[in-house]
Amino acid sequence: MSIFKTTMRVSWVDTDAAGVVHFSNYFRFFEKAEEEFYNKLGFNFDKINEKYGIWFPRVEAYCKYKSPSKFNDILEIEIHLEELKEKAVKYGFKVHNRTTEKEAAEGYVVIVAADKKKNKAVRIPEEIKRKLMRFFGRI
Amino acid sequence: MSIFKTTMRVSWVDTDAAGVVHFSNYFRFFEKAEEEFYNKLGFNFDKINEKYGIWFPRVEAYCKYKSPSKFNDILEIEIHLEELKEKAVKYGFKVHNRTTEKEAAEGYVVIVAADKKKNKAVRIPEEIKRKLMRFFGRI
Amino acid sequence: MSIFKTTMRVSWVDTDAAGVVHFSNYFRFFEKAEEEFYNKLGFNFDKINEKYGIWFPRVEAYCKYKSPSKFNDILEIEIHLEELKEKAVKYGFKVHNRTTEKEAAEGYVVIVAADKKKNKAVRIPEEIKRKLMRFFGRI
Amino acid sequence: MSIFKTTMRVSWVDTDAAGVVHFSNYFRFFEKAEEEFYNKLGFNFDKINEKYGIWFPRVEAYCKYKSPSKFNDILEIEIHLEELKEKAVKYGFKVHNRTTEKEAAEGYVVIVAADKKKNKAVRIPEEIKRKLMRFFGRI
Repeated sequence: MSIFKTTMRVSWVDTDAAGVVHFSNYFRFFEKAEEEFYNKLGFNFDKINEKYGIWFPRVEAYCKYKSPSKFNDILEIEIHLEELKEKAVKYGFKVHNRTTEKEAAEGYVVIVAADKKKNKAVRIPEEIKRKLMRFFGRI
Repeated sequence: MSIFKTTMRVSWVDTDAAGVVHFSNYFRFFEKAEEEFYNKLGFNFDKINEKYGIWFPRVEAYCKYKSPSKFNDILEIEIHLEELKEKAVKYGFKVHNRTTEKEAAEGYVVIVAADKKKNKAVRIPEEIKRKLMRFFGRI
Repeated sequence: MSIFKTTMRVSWVDTDAAGVVHFSNYFRFFEKAEEEFYNKLGFNFDKINEKYGIWFPRVEAYCKYKSPSKFNDILEIEIHLEELKEKAVKYGFKVHNRTTEKEAAEGYVVIVAADKKKNKAVRIPEEIKRKLMRFFGRI
Repeated sequence: MSIFKTTMRVSWVDTDAAGVVHFSNYFRFFEKAEEEFYNKLGFNFDKINEKYGIWFPRVEAYCKYKSPSKFNDILEIEIHLEELKEKAVKYGFKVHNRTTEKEAAEGYVVIVAADKKKNKAVRIPEEIKRKLMRFFGRI
């Protein structure tokens, strides 16, 4: 099974007065990793929107926090596929702190393909689905 | 059973290019509601930290998104108590959009009392625990 | 000369690892105050956009930081009119920290009326201009 | 004269409902570029703080917006030295959008060295000053 990995550095603005990354920012890191992943596969939110008139709104998001990360720490974000359905995809995320060598967080996000105008769930475009399946070794 | 309610208005900066509130911001709204709640009970993150040397780091966070919210919408955030343990508390949140009159989101956050220096879980200070129990009608 | 005043409370997420409000957030506070001001005058970014097909993009933003603000501090934001031109308006802002009773910051923002489709500066709608002039005592 | 350059990609969370980067985020991009720059020179906010007990709070920040940037655009941020004084440094920034090939923004930030405990301006540590002067070709 394939996984996607990318790294990012914790910026000053990501921290809060406890001196660690604010819990909400892990969800932003998840999404940034997802964006990098799509770029690697040759598409992105905007292109999909233009071509198919669909968005990928999040319908669920979860994170478990394991150890705090600090300013300038290098985080490795891993994306794996937890579930791929007709209209939805569930990505699992793991955040490994390369500076402390500890697991920082793990979680998941459930995304649906949604018709932009009708605001209802639709099938994930075949082209996207195939790219995801090929990457994650499901074909 | 008592619940705490507060309202906030969606700011321009809370939105993203889909024209709706970015999914990560609901976690920030949850926390702002929690801050208001503590202010109402007569304490806050900083005071607890000063008095007891403890933080309240989040160990889990979850959100289910039900309908999008837009710029300037009025959101009513409700906090209820899901679980109160020796060292941890689990709050449930509901976000009702007063402008669209739809449920916008619901979720939960699990918080532990943590010794700031030793970075390990400790008992929630008795004073705080009693205030929570009194508010939520558990005494 | 009239001024508009509103207050906001510093949230945990507004702070950074120095234990104070991150400098970029004052620009967000300025904008939130501007949003409150427009609501008071009976319009908002979205309504103007719908009715006139124009945005109010910022073309300049400046802030001078005078004293740090901390978590839970109450900030009073004041807006005054520095300049009102055919296509642009310059607002001045002062941030007074009600908790420390110190001046926290002051700055300005220059906004232009811009045609959404053509992406070029246009006249501020007469209705908006009149409301601004009336509020700021220029009529 | 030397300049420092780094690139970053616009994330979804950086955009607002106008479909472009929120104006406050350019200040965050400036700071991220500054962080990269310090990493390149072999120090960072935290290390300076630990070693010398000083922070680098911002005392002024300014940005002029020239053209909007959108999701996934590649931005090249340039830092040049505008002024280096005993206790303060003024950095100039230019943001060039590599996707549209337009100038996106330019601005400056004035930073002072501040004693963390006394909360007053102090001399920039000699080691830091020399590194800055060497990089910017002032020695």
